[in-house]
Amino acid sequence: MAAEKPLVSVTCTAPTNIAVIKYWGKRDEKLILPINSSLSVTLHQNQLKTTTTAAISRDFKEDRIWLNGKEEDVGHHRLQSCLREIRRLARKRRSGSDGDLVPLSYKVHIASVNDFPTAAGLASSAAGYACLVYTLAQLYGVESELSEVARQGSGSACRSMFGGFVQWHMGERPDGKDSIAQQVAPESHWPELRVLVLVVSAERKPVSSTSGMQTSVETSSLLKTSGHTPILLPSVLALDSWIISENWLIALQFRAESVVPGRMAEMARCIKERDFEAFGQLTMKDSNQFHATCLDTFPPICYLNDTSRQIISLVHCFNAYYGKTKVAYTFDAGPNAVIFTLEETVDEFVAVIKQVFPPEMNGDKFLKGLPVEPVELSEEVKSALPMEPFPGGIRYIITTQVGPGPQVLEEPQRQLLGPDGLPKPVS
Amino acid sequence: MAAEKPLVSVTCTAPTNIAVIKYWGKRDEKLILPINSSLSVTLHQNQLKTTTTAAISRDFKEDRIWLNGKEEDVGHHRLQSCLREIRRLARKRRSGSDGDLVPLSYKVHIASVNDFPTAAGLASSAAGYACLVYTLAQLYGVESELSEVARQGSGSACRSMFGGFVQWHMGERPDGKDSIAQQVAPESHWPELRVLVLVVSAERKPVSSTSGMQTSVETSSLLKTSGHTPILLPSVLALDSWIISENWLIALQFRAESVVPGRMAEMARCIKERDFEAFGQLTMKDSNQFHATCLDTFPPICYLNDTSRQIISLVHCFNAYYGKTKVAYTFDAGPNAVIFTLEETVDEFVAVIKQVFPPEMNGDKFLKGLPVEPVELSEEVKSALPMEPFPGGIRYIITTQVGPGPQVLEEPQRQLLGPDGLPKPVS
Repeated sequence: MAAEKPLVSVTCTAPTNIAVIKYWGKRDEKLILPINSSLSVTLHQNQLKTTTTAAISRDFKEDRIWLNGKEEDVGHHRLQSCLREIRRLARKRRSGSDGDLVPLSYKVHIASVNDFPTAAGLASSAAGYACLVYTLAQLYGVESELSEVARQGSGSACRSMFGGFVQWHMGERPDGKDSIAQQVAPESHWPELRVLVLVVSAERKPVSSTSGMQTSVETSSLLKTSGHTPILLPSVLALDSWIISENWLIALQFRAESVVPGRMAEMARCIKERDFEAFGQLTMKDSNQFHATCLDTFPPICYLNDTSRQIISLVHCFNAYYGKTKVAYTFDAGPNAVIFTLEETVDEFVAVIKQVFPPEMNGDKFLKGLPVEPVELSEEVKSALPMEPFPGGIRYIITTQVGPGPQVLEEPQRQLLGPDGLPKPVS
Repeated sequence: MAAEKPLVSVTCTAPTNIAVIKYWGKRDEKLILPINSSLSVTLHQNQLKTTTTAAISRDFKEDRIWLNGKEEDVGHHRLQSCLREIRRLARKRRSGSDGDLVPLSYKVHIASVNDFPTAAGLASSAAGYACLVYTLAQLYGVESELSEVARQGSGSACRSMFGGFVQWHMGERPDGKDSIAQQVAPESHWPELRVLVLVVSAERKPVSSTSGMQTSVETSSLLKTSGHTPILLPSVLALDSWIISENWLIALQFRAESVVPGRMAEMARCIKERDFEAFGQLTMKDSNQFHATCLDTFPPICYLNDTSRQIISLVHCFNAYYGKTKVAYTFDAGPNAVIFTLEETVDEFVAVIKQVFPPEMNGDKFLKGLPVEPVELSEEVKSALPMEPFPGGIRYIITTQVGPGPQVLEEPQRQLLGPDGLPKPVS
């Protein structure tokens, strides 16, 4: 019956996530199998999300995809992996039944839009692939292990298939069937938890130490250490051609085998018991270890800049003033900080940020997302911050919280593809 | 006979040194015994040195010391260690003979002056303690293992007791008798080698992440890991009260046991064979590992700032352009870079530095030390530098080379103490 409709489409949204136990190092590049498990917090889609519409029609001549309004090459191998896997699962599911389902032979049109600023430095590929896979699954009526499919688009995308607190089990099987995401706790579990994304200014012309140095490296896509599994860098680093020191590889393997298992268990406990003190400490330590490892590669990779370092210092000073961990930072592959804190601390810490990084009047709204109340800082707190103000060091703050996993949108007006199967003009 | 002189004095100079295999982590705080061997290059005293005069007289009522013209507490425990050790060695040497030697019962006056800018961030304590020990040894006629005494003043000072290329054997004995420095090659061995100290501007108010965060840490002066020797941080970090993660300690121990022995041997080979390619690569890797380790402590220590990172990037780009290692960086506990290169590359690389960091006209002389000829950079080289100019990022450059060990000064006018045993007025 569905097959008789001229066009069948589904529109969904998916969240991004921020890892508190970091994923880096792959044991299989094609299947995106990691060398260690990781754990993340799903961010709320009210502030940061991807929206995707997927449609099929007998009239479509070929698979096509538009990202943020621009048509892209549908042949990209990771995109193809996801499409192929969903269609395979759909075929498998249908064997024996043939109900109210869309024909697998029809071509698909996909349109996807990110509503979060690229400057936020959050992994848009996580939300993007999660949304793609979730939307295709809705379209084809697939319900089985979707995180395994999303993982093949972008490793961290598998964690965006769930809301709340999510762990990605590294798995052991060579085919990756057990390298899947699982919810540790739902988004309702820790309602006081807040997340601030501090978007750092590009102070100077983009001298990305990375891009600068990348020209200098030879190609070395698969790295072997004696007695160890071959390790690949996470694609989020876009560093497939990086030379890595033997010692660094051993350090990565050491982390994967000796550090992460304990940290995963401890982090799950922190979340289950809503132990912010321990949650914050471990989050900061794992972030630091990630960046230490990047610095020990060769040529070194330095994602943190002076503003990042000031934020690190500020967080430790603020916590020291209160004698406990009230805020915690984590950094991914860029200088922007993601801050975890509790609802009761948001207003004061934002005031602290504004004290140290007075917003520049550039028309940009400094506070985005959840409402933040202005607070007058006490002189005591101010004097506990051992730094001079640095105007404009932070461009803006997005205040958000833990959120749910991917959602289906029912409202036709939010579809990204028109009745003709082409992207609607941007309104 | 000497005992009848009203005042006997000796004046000496000593060099600083820069480690290419870094020392960090102590197994004995009091004796300053390291957990790994290290290797350094002695810098030339024409550019950077400490001068010390030590005098004894029957008229002196007590031991006294002046540093850079200001009287300091002679009771400082490391200073006392050095004084006590030299006097003990002198006593030992004299048992049986009693020639033309100064009386050990007389009190000593010491004056010491550093002629290198504190901003250079070079370990003035290395030159300072080396000079103190060498001068006292001349005064008391001691010739035996002086590096072992200097080590008790400041770990890296033991390496400043020799010119050229120097290794500090970590040793194994609990009393530290085998934790001594030894020359790998004299200063004449590699005459083409040049050293550029790039003094980075304090771009912002000194927010030393270190000092900022130090307020937040508890005291933990001796750290034990299960199954490992207790480890202390190097005093150069001034971080005796730092909390260190278990994992970091294991990483330190891992480095000490599994990485450094191989690197020491390889570095000695590079020097002996004047293999700049391998020397430079290993120097950079060891510096990066040091800073990675600092970042993986908790709270993290970040010594490199944005300018340091730009220099790192610049070095890798410059080498990539030529397809070989023509320059190499190393960083100690601060943002200033020490660059190794060969004589033939100095002029061009300085021109590159001036291109990326145009000197600001602040009255400061930009080029200090050995003469550097202006060079017009080719457009090809300029376009290989993937960064916008950052005016004033580097305050000045000190160009120097490998130099000799401590020296005795014969000229009376260079003595720092007058006939009255007090510091001469600064001329």
